[in-house]
Amino acid sequence: MVILIKSPDSIGLVSAISGVMARERANIITMREYVDIEEQLFFARLHIQTESSIENLKQQLEDVLPERAVITVSNAPVKKVVLLVTKEHHCLSDLLIRHHFKSMKAEVQAVIGNHEVLREVSEKFDVPFHYIATEGKTKAVFENELCRQIDAYRFDYIVLAKFMRILSADFVEKYPLKIINIHHSFLPAFIGASPYKQAYERGVKIIGATAHYVTNDLDEGPIISQQITPVNHNFTVSDMIKAGREVEKSVLATALQLVFEDRVFVYNNKTVVFD
Amino acid sequence: MVILIKSPDSIGLVSAISGVMARERANIITMREYVDIEEQLFFARLHIQTESSIENLKQQLEDVLPERAVITVSNAPVKKVVLLVTKEHHCLSDLLIRHHFKSMKAEVQAVIGNHEVLREVSEKFDVPFHYIATEGKTKAVFENELCRQIDAYRFDYIVLAKFMRILSADFVEKYPLKIINIHHSFLPAFIGASPYKQAYERGVKIIGATAHYVTNDLDEGPIISQQITPVNHNFTVSDMIKAGREVEKSVLATALQLVFEDRVFVYNNKTVVFD
Amino acid sequence: MVILIKSPDSIGLVSAISGVMARERANIITMREYVDIEEQLFFARLHIQTESSIENLKQQLEDVLPERAVITVSNAPVKKVVLLVTKEHHCLSDLLIRHHFKSMKAEVQAVIGNHEVLREVSEKFDVPFHYIATEGKTKAVFENELCRQIDAYRFDYIVLAKFMRILSADFVEKYPLKIINIHHSFLPAFIGASPYKQAYERGVKIIGATAHYVTNDLDEGPIISQQITPVNHNFTVSDMIKAGREVEKSVLATALQLVFEDRVFVYNNKTVVFD
Amino acid sequence: MVILIKSPDSIGLVSAISGVMARERANIITMREYVDIEEQLFFARLHIQTESSIENLKQQLEDVLPERAVITVSNAPVKKVVLLVTKEHHCLSDLLIRHHFKSMKAEVQAVIGNHEVLREVSEKFDVPFHYIATEGKTKAVFENELCRQIDAYRFDYIVLAKFMRILSADFVEKYPLKIINIHHSFLPAFIGASPYKQAYERGVKIIGATAHYVTNDLDEGPIISQQITPVNHNFTVSDMIKAGREVEKSVLATALQLVFEDRVFVYNNKTVVFD
Repeated sequence: MVILIKSPDSIGLVSAISGVMARERANIITMREYVDIEEQLFFARLHIQTESSIENLKQQLEDVLPERAVITVSNAPVKKVVLLVTKEHHCLSDLLIRHHFKSMKAEVQAVIGNHEVLREVSEKFDVPFHYIATEGKTKAVFENELCRQIDAYRFDYIVLAKFMRILSADFVEKYPLKIINIHHSFLPAFIGASPYKQAYERGVKIIGATAHYVTNDLDEGPIISQQITPVNHNFTVSDMIKAGREVEKSVLATALQLVFEDRVFVYNNKTVVFD
Repeated sequence: MVILIKSPDSIGLVSAISGVMARERANIITMREYVDIEEQLFFARLHIQTESSIENLKQQLEDVLPERAVITVSNAPVKKVVLLVTKEHHCLSDLLIRHHFKSMKAEVQAVIGNHEVLREVSEKFDVPFHYIATEGKTKAVFENELCRQIDAYRFDYIVLAKFMRILSADFVEKYPLKIINIHHSFLPAFIGASPYKQAYERGVKIIGATAHYVTNDLDEGPIISQQITPVNHNFTVSDMIKAGREVEKSVLATALQLVFEDRVFVYNNKTVVFD
Repeated sequence: MVILIKSPDSIGLVSAISGVMARERANIITMREYVDIEEQLFFARLHIQTESSIENLKQQLEDVLPERAVITVSNAPVKKVVLLVTKEHHCLSDLLIRHHFKSMKAEVQAVIGNHEVLREVSEKFDVPFHYIATEGKTKAVFENELCRQIDAYRFDYIVLAKFMRILSADFVEKYPLKIINIHHSFLPAFIGASPYKQAYERGVKIIGATAHYVTNDLDEGPIISQQITPVNHNFTVSDMIKAGREVEKSVLATALQLVFEDRVFVYNNKTVVFD
Repeated sequence: MVILIKSPDSIGLVSAISGVMARERANIITMREYVDIEEQLFFARLHIQTESSIENLKQQLEDVLPERAVITVSNAPVKKVVLLVTKEHHCLSDLLIRHHFKSMKAEVQAVIGNHEVLREVSEKFDVPFHYIATEGKTKAVFENELCRQIDAYRFDYIVLAKFMRILSADFVEKYPLKIINIHHSFLPAFIGASPYKQAYERGVKIIGATAHYVTNDLDEGPIISQQITPVNHNFTVSDMIKAGREVEKSVLATALQLVFEDRVFVYNNKTVVFD
């Protein structure tokens, strides 16, 4: 079982939690905690073995923890995800392979594209593909269709695997902390349409990518993971895009694995990652 | 205060420890633990704020933990170190600077060299330098003089900052887990006198360095930290040595900081590092 | 066109080469050269645009370069490869995706496995899969069948994409500098059957992987590329294997791209890589 | 000798250059070139051995290269630098050590600080330190004094080794491509006074530093080198500052070595680095 706790901090929290575990003869395999001292917030993740029930453990933890504590106890089930894509295949392909060989703690329920080009690879792996055109529609109409198609599935997360449409605040609000995106840059980043072109023109020596939750906050939402790759003057814009794709693919897979294993907490537009 | 606990694992350890902290109204700033499940060993490091005394806390922890538990409670004092060097200055200089500006949690008590060349830089920073010649002496005689000079100081650690003499088993046994070395390679490594020449001849694309405790184990003792740097065909042996020095300097400083902050446990020829 | 030159070094080589290019009105897009001063060897790679013919350019270069110079001039065609696999899918899947989306400068002609498990994913991408059993056969008989199956295809390279059988010297000699392997370690490396288990037991803080040509040299042949990933005490053997797979996949793809783009020279059991 | 050439691109440049080298019986140890195809610009760096004179080689190259080519031929002398500092010692100390042990291809002529605190360490290494107060002066007056003090020395470069005053456009214009700065961030970057605090609040997982020439361009001038270090939720602002200092020190040393070895060309607010 995996237990996640987010609580106002106070003296004795760890003692209270581990007291419950001891009483229930739970074997703590890993326990990680973090206190944001300024914010007075306590976070913990426990991976335990026990014969106790989820309900019982949850009840006992509620009895000893502060009222405002948020407690989840689960068998850490394989997550269900819906992938949104446009034309670029690199992130999608990587996730489909991991799905197919069960090397990622999630099952891909469906792929939804605003172009048709990634239907073939999705269906190769027996994953349903849905095409939702954008042409001749308002954003609201498009997003309405998108929501209906997403909501036709049971899912834990919506992954934007190089989905190149900006989602409205309304859409984002419907799925709080359920949408994960891969951003083709560090944050802060070159803003606008062609970040690699800007990176090229600026002559940077490193490019990177950022996986993050999508929120309606000022900028791009809580960062889960970031990675980089060195570049140099020999790199054309096209070489930078290629190098960037490798990083995007890698950082998205890394971030998703962390999320799917329930290792990520979000607060104040940032994350605690118990990796 | 910093509390370090190494104990046979059993259910309820975290509860017992945090129970003591709660009773003593200790504020846990950070708590990290790790269980080696195969070996049934439990490790914990706590950083706490409390008005309780060291003796009291230690006694209370002993009361609730298994008999074979090893418990240290301290105010995490600045450590005292003696540095052993030969001719290369890069690690020594870096440590002297950190010592001088108090950016490392340790004070350099003395530098001991088997050559004179690093006297000047040591004395620049008002650190005593002792020269112990090797010429015309057996290893036993040399090491005897070395021990006497080292033991003239109060110290927590002996750091081999590019000390190029192999120490005898007898010497090493006198200072268990007190000697830290920087090794010019990964482990496993090119064995013998000229590792960078071998790396060059082998055409490797990455070189690295390893900071480790010195023991009389089969090979080079528990690893604390490792770092790498990329190389390519343009690197001559001399370029590799230069690049290697930058890595050696960096990884030694990193490892020492971890050790000086009491973040490293050793068991079974390996380390648990709560970084 | 891509021109590769390996020649005994002498004064005036670059002048001679670029003189030919100037006379033929060839536009040099990139030119890279390297001289191994000790070995007196000169290497160059030119990427040019020209209306001249391959034969003409080759003839002219032969006229001005030393007799023992090895010169290849080509249109840098997409390479053909045969992949050898066992049971692990991660490298194979990655290469099949790159093949399918033409993001790698090579076409996969066939996959040959000594187990059946990777047939499905190969055939998903319309790549022929051949199973060659090892049971009840001598190594010689097995390799004979393997050669026959490989030789049924036109190919430039044989890629061992986690092929877990050691190939005999006879086999290797048949395909000089045509076999590329991904090795689950740095070189030098933990020797023997379970490198990740050894890495775990040794408590290393970094693991890596090496892509190299397979030769009958002392150890594992000229290194093309190496990459690493950090690990720590929290990693079980199984976690290290998982982390290792990500590195293996990445470094094999990187190395193959370099080879397929004719950027790698081999001599003295090492490589010159014009990346 | 080191030869640097920046020229409008045209067919036959390499041939012309290497023809001169062949005629002069110059032994080319390394030759690197790069063509920016869009901008039609050609860059080359040659490291040669020859008995010819600087003047003769320069003349001959001028005879065969386009009129607008910029050609420098030199014996790659050790560079002279003046360092500007404020209070933080980490970059200064590192450079003083390299200066003292002659492991950097430059001599530090003087250190100029707008605070007194780094006088001691400078003078330890027998480098003159000059204090120029800012209090009660306009920027123009302060910079005037600064220029006078700088100009009292012969120097090739002014290095801002954590100099925390923004220099006016007038000042920068006086020393075109002579001022090198270390910036505590990637570029693009968190703008303003407390970048590490912003990085902390944004919850980034990577921090970096950038060494660059100071110009009056839109943003921070041509980038020479960038490096990063991973961070996580456990890092306080103060931990990020510490980690950042290690990166700043390392990237500044790397960038300066490239500049001092004449490996960096600047054009269009970016660099070509022949490392």
